[in-house]
Amino acid sequence: MSFSEVKAFVFDVFGTCVDWRTSVSRELEQYISTPGTDYRALADNWRQGYYASIRKLAETNPNPFPDLDTVHREILDRILEEENIALDEEARVNLNQCWHRLSPWPDTNPGVDALNEFAITSTLSNGNVRLLLDLKKYGKIPFDTILSAELFEAYKPNPKAYLEAARVLKLEPHEVCLVAAHTYDLQGAKKCGFKGAYIRRAGEDPATDPPKEIADVAVDSIVQLAEWVRQNK
Amino acid sequence: MSFSEVKAFVFDVFGTCVDWRTSVSRELEQYISTPGTDYRALADNWRQGYYASIRKLAETNPNPFPDLDTVHREILDRILEEENIALDEEARVNLNQCWHRLSPWPDTNPGVDALNEFAITSTLSNGNVRLLLDLKKYGKIPFDTILSAELFEAYKPNPKAYLEAARVLKLEPHEVCLVAAHTYDLQGAKKCGFKGAYIRRAGEDPATDPPKEIADVAVDSIVQLAEWVRQNK
Repeated sequence: MSFSEVKAFVFDVFGTCVDWRTSVSRELEQYISTPGTDYRALADNWRQGYYASIRKLAETNPNPFPDLDTVHREILDRILEEENIALDEEARVNLNQCWHRLSPWPDTNPGVDALNEFAITSTLSNGNVRLLLDLKKYGKIPFDTILSAELFEAYKPNPKAYLEAARVLKLEPHEVCLVAAHTYDLQGAKKCGFKGAYIRRAGEDPATDPPKEIADVAVDSIVQLAEWVRQNK
Repeated sequence: MSFSEVKAFVFDVFGTCVDWRTSVSRELEQYISTPGTDYRALADNWRQGYYASIRKLAETNPNPFPDLDTVHREILDRILEEENIALDEEARVNLNQCWHRLSPWPDTNPGVDALNEFAITSTLSNGNVRLLLDLKKYGKIPFDTILSAELFEAYKPNPKAYLEAARVLKLEPHEVCLVAAHTYDLQGAKKCGFKGAYIRRAGEDPATDPPKEIADVAVDSIVQLAEWVRQNK
C-alpha cells in the first residue's frame, strides 16, 4: 500500500485528536455538585446522545442544517432532565461550550506537525467551524486549516461531507486520507474512495482493528502514523 | 476606537500578505524568454485583468461559481495572445500555478503570529481554498484557518463574502476586522459592519490612507497592526 499519492490528511477530531472524555467529565464536575454523580458516565451519556442524533442527521440531511452546538445543548437538556439535575440557563450555556475546550492527546500535536512536513492537514469533523477553531487554539493543534461538516451542510458519514472536502482541496478522493478512531467514519470515507488510517484510542472503538478494506493502516498514535507514512511513500 | 471587541482578524492575501508582484515577475521571467520583455509590466497586466474580472463577478455572482485558477488562466491566455508570446499548454498550466507560490512580506508571519496570541486569524480572500492553503504552506504563514470566497460562492466585495465569514466564525460583523491593502475591499467590509485595518503596501493602493469611515487604523505593517491593537484593547 503506497501512500505516495496521498496529498492531504483530514482528521476526525472528537476522540481521534482530543480526549473529550477526560475534559468533559472534568467540566461536568465543576458544574454539577449532586453527591454520588458519576461524571464519566454522564460524559459518555452525552456522547452517546450525540451519536444517536448525528446518525439520524447524516442520513436525513435536513435543511436548514442543524448547528452542532444546538444538537449538543438539546442532548444536555434531556440528560439533565432524566437525571433530575437542576442547572440554570447561564450554567447550561457555559457547560455546553465545554466541547470547545478539549485537550489533545499527547501525540496529536507532534503527529500533525510531522505530517505537515509533506502533506496538507485539516480537520474534517462534525464540529462546526468555530468549535474546531476554538479546539485548535485551545490545544495549539497545528492543522493547516479547518474543514467542517458545517461548510458542506452534511454530517459524516454522509458521502457529501467527504466528497466536498476532496473537491475544495482539489484532490481526487484517493489522494486524501481520513484519520479516525471510529470504524463508521472510515467506512463512510472508504465508500467515497478515500484512504483510511485508524488510530487506536482507549474508550473509542473496541480493541479490534477494522479490516483492511476499511483502514489501510492501524496505529497507536498520530506520531506512529506519520512514521508509517514516511516509510510507505 | 476600542478594538477590545474584535475576536477575529480576516486577511486579504494578494498584496496584503504576499508580494505577488515580485514572485509573479520572477516566474514570468522563467517561462518567457522574448528579449526586451518587461516582466513587471506583464505581472501588473495580469493583476489588472484579475481586478476587471473580479469586479464583474462580485457584482453578477454567477452560478456555477467560477474558479479563480480558471479566471487567472483566461487572463493569461489573453495577455499572451495580445503580446504575441508563444507558450505551450504545459508551460501555461505551470505558470498559472505561480499564484499558489507567492512570498509573504517580511512582516506578515511575525504579525499574524502576534495577532494569534489574542484573536482568531484567517484568510478572507478571493483565492480558492487550495490556492490559499498552498500559499500558507509555501510561505509558512501561521493563519489559524482558511476562509475563501469559494466556500461562500461570492467574490469580495460582494457583501455575502464578508457576512458568511462572520457567520461561520459565530461573530457579529463588528467583532471581525478585515485587514487589507485595498480601499475597495475595506469599503465592502465596512458596508457589512466589519472593522477595517489598512496596511500600506508599495505598489498596491495609492499612498493616501483611506478615510476613517473605511479604515479604523492605517499602518505600515501587520506587526505594527498587532502592536496598535494591543494598545487599543
